[in-house]
Amino acid sequence: MDKVLAINSGSSSFKYKIFSLDDEQVLASGLGDRIGIDGSTFSIKLANGEKHEAEVDLPNQEAAVQTLLKWLKEYGVIEDVKEIVGVGHRIVSGGDLFPDSAIIDKDNLHKVFDLADYAPLHNPAEGRGIQAFMELLPNVPQVGVFDTSFHQSMDAVHYLYSLPYEYYEKYKVRKYGAHGTSVRFVSQRAAELMGKDLKDLKLIVCHLGSGASVTAVKDGKCYDTSMGFSPLAGVTMGTRSGDVDPSALQHIMHKEGMTDFDEMIDILNHKSGLLGISGISSDKRDIRNSDSPRAQLASDIFDDRVVRYIGSYIAEMNGADAIIFTAGIGEHDDPMRKDVLSKFTYMGVEVDDAANESNEEGFITTKDSKLKALVIPTDEELMIERDVVRLAKLK
Amino acid sequence: MDKVLAINSGSSSFKYKIFSLDDEQVLASGLGDRIGIDGSTFSIKLANGEKHEAEVDLPNQEAAVQTLLKWLKEYGVIEDVKEIVGVGHRIVSGGDLFPDSAIIDKDNLHKVFDLADYAPLHNPAEGRGIQAFMELLPNVPQVGVFDTSFHQSMDAVHYLYSLPYEYYEKYKVRKYGAHGTSVRFVSQRAAELMGKDLKDLKLIVCHLGSGASVTAVKDGKCYDTSMGFSPLAGVTMGTRSGDVDPSALQHIMHKEGMTDFDEMIDILNHKSGLLGISGISSDKRDIRNSDSPRAQLASDIFDDRVVRYIGSYIAEMNGADAIIFTAGIGEHDDPMRKDVLSKFTYMGVEVDDAANESNEEGFITTKDSKLKALVIPTDEELMIERDVVRLAKLK
Repeated sequence: MDKVLAINSGSSSFKYKIFSLDDEQVLASGLGDRIGIDGSTFSIKLANGEKHEAEVDLPNQEAAVQTLLKWLKEYGVIEDVKEIVGVGHRIVSGGDLFPDSAIIDKDNLHKVFDLADYAPLHNPAEGRGIQAFMELLPNVPQVGVFDTSFHQSMDAVHYLYSLPYEYYEKYKVRKYGAHGTSVRFVSQRAAELMGKDLKDLKLIVCHLGSGASVTAVKDGKCYDTSMGFSPLAGVTMGTRSGDVDPSALQHIMHKEGMTDFDEMIDILNHKSGLLGISGISSDKRDIRNSDSPRAQLASDIFDDRVVRYIGSYIAEMNGADAIIFTAGIGEHDDPMRKDVLSKFTYMGVEVDDAANESNEEGFITTKDSKLKALVIPTDEELMIERDVVRLAKLK
Repeated sequence: MDKVLAINSGSSSFKYKIFSLDDEQVLASGLGDRIGIDGSTFSIKLANGEKHEAEVDLPNQEAAVQTLLKWLKEYGVIEDVKEIVGVGHRIVSGGDLFPDSAIIDKDNLHKVFDLADYAPLHNPAEGRGIQAFMELLPNVPQVGVFDTSFHQSMDAVHYLYSLPYEYYEKYKVRKYGAHGTSVRFVSQRAAELMGKDLKDLKLIVCHLGSGASVTAVKDGKCYDTSMGFSPLAGVTMGTRSGDVDPSALQHIMHKEGMTDFDEMIDILNHKSGLLGISGISSDKRDIRNSDSPRAQLASDIFDDRVVRYIGSYIAEMNGADAIIFTAGIGEHDDPMRKDVLSKFTYMGVEVDDAANESNEEGFITTKDSKLKALVIPTDEELMIERDVVRLAKLK
């Protein structure tokens, strides 16, 4: 039985899912953690629910790939590595070089490494992961699935900053966006659930996890998105600030005697957002369960920034058919969804409280609601699997 | 006949208007320019249209005030300085100390100087202007009218950034906004023209000049506004960038070998916006008259950013009654207004083309238009005059 692997390499981790080519069923999934760090572990979860985890020496991505292939055989997921007919890899940045997922040959692998400027923690690790697979499975097609590809359809009006134009020409400074694979997946699913052609819909996809973004999808393509040159910009996130006046940063640097802007960016990435406002946690669940006024404020600010972007994108697209919530917070935080949607009664939104509180896939607005809202669990790995099938022409 | 002076001191200029207390008529207006710089000039325009201008030595604000009083007498606007019963001063930053305009005594004058951190080019010059009036007209009430006051009604949800909370506590880093005096003036006028009580309206005021902002006005108060800690943030401006991902700035600094963030901020303030994108001009009229594709792009980006903020604020307020355009571009750029409003047909906007193209005060949407739009010329000096009358209890 032919099988497809979907790989999601972080800077020091390695998530995988293996699918049956015939019916998209997940045969196993798991994680290689702390790659290149002491105390690395490997885990597998089988289709029958059985889980195994062990400490394994994982000095690099190649060791992680070797371990994966060994465990898949040991736990009976595959009998032979030849059953693996394609491997898909999530890649954070495709810059403006990859407007779609692509078969990764040696040339394209170079490009993945060259784009490290845009995702210094991710692209090199992902490139090394692909390299390891190329060596261990030399005849199997490797497909790169880029977080940015879906957003390459944006117009310059939306992706350009109001900066001196030469920075765009010389350094490709522009908006790239992120979460594209997820947005693509849930947009397609939304069209199915709505019984419409995706090309006829104006959708707003709120991918709200520890990283969070809002994307306007028109004619099945990205029209605008809240993340920017990097995943720092846009709405409030777990530890990331989202939008902020650069002058405020200048003021802080002067007051703190800080001279290195990289230090400020580090604070914006790792000590801001829900964590920075609340002082308690970057996790929206902790924030919601806390009685502290600053936690309440953090929660309200989170909701407000999502409202701002949804409102912006309704205007940019001159209307919308549906708002979609996905990812950890989007799928599970029904009070957040209710609060956000309460601002859109002017658009004819009518929340179905029971559906909203169920936190299950489907409509969370009533049948009469003029603007619809849906919860759709995202599945980036399945989207990766489908891209492998499409590009390697496996079906 | 009692008279009131309205003063608008820039960093090296000094605009004035003198009003008759009885009927708010402008008796004269003019400018002291290049104060403290070689080649300073002074000008006056009388009610009958007569204009005079001359080179005058203006080494400081006191000399400018002395020249003003002398010219007002020479050109017969006043017979005696005793006729001046109140002076109002526009002040850029009131920080969080002035939630309303205020009589400026010695204590409040100290505060104006102390707020220099938030407006280093403006507050010190404005403070020196007030000081000069205090010395030359010691018994006349001086009233400070702050650009930020109107925005002090914002909730923390809207004014706080998603930064570590300590920066707000220690350094008062938050959104302050600007153009408050103008927004207050046109909001009141809009309510008059709409025949409604301002407290019952949700308005969106687009103050679009070389500096530009969009403000949501609810119950007669500022609900949210696009400018931030400083007037750099928000929509695209003549030379200012408006919103930008801080990571993009980090990337530019690395590539350019720039180590001082102040240098980057200087580029964002003076070399960005319409000028930066187009490479041609910071003036929207030049941009509109140019055939260059980059000028067209700059114009489209300008319009788009205004659309984004209007859409955000419609959502935050859960609807809106009217969109108001004011200031140089807002009052005179009818193609811009038409382009922006074309994105709001989902809100039931119907533009009245003839009214829009007239560029005159009043409605620019049809009677049946569900969401209204208006052009209202701003008059910050008249608002200042009215605040002097109100606070010094002159009527």
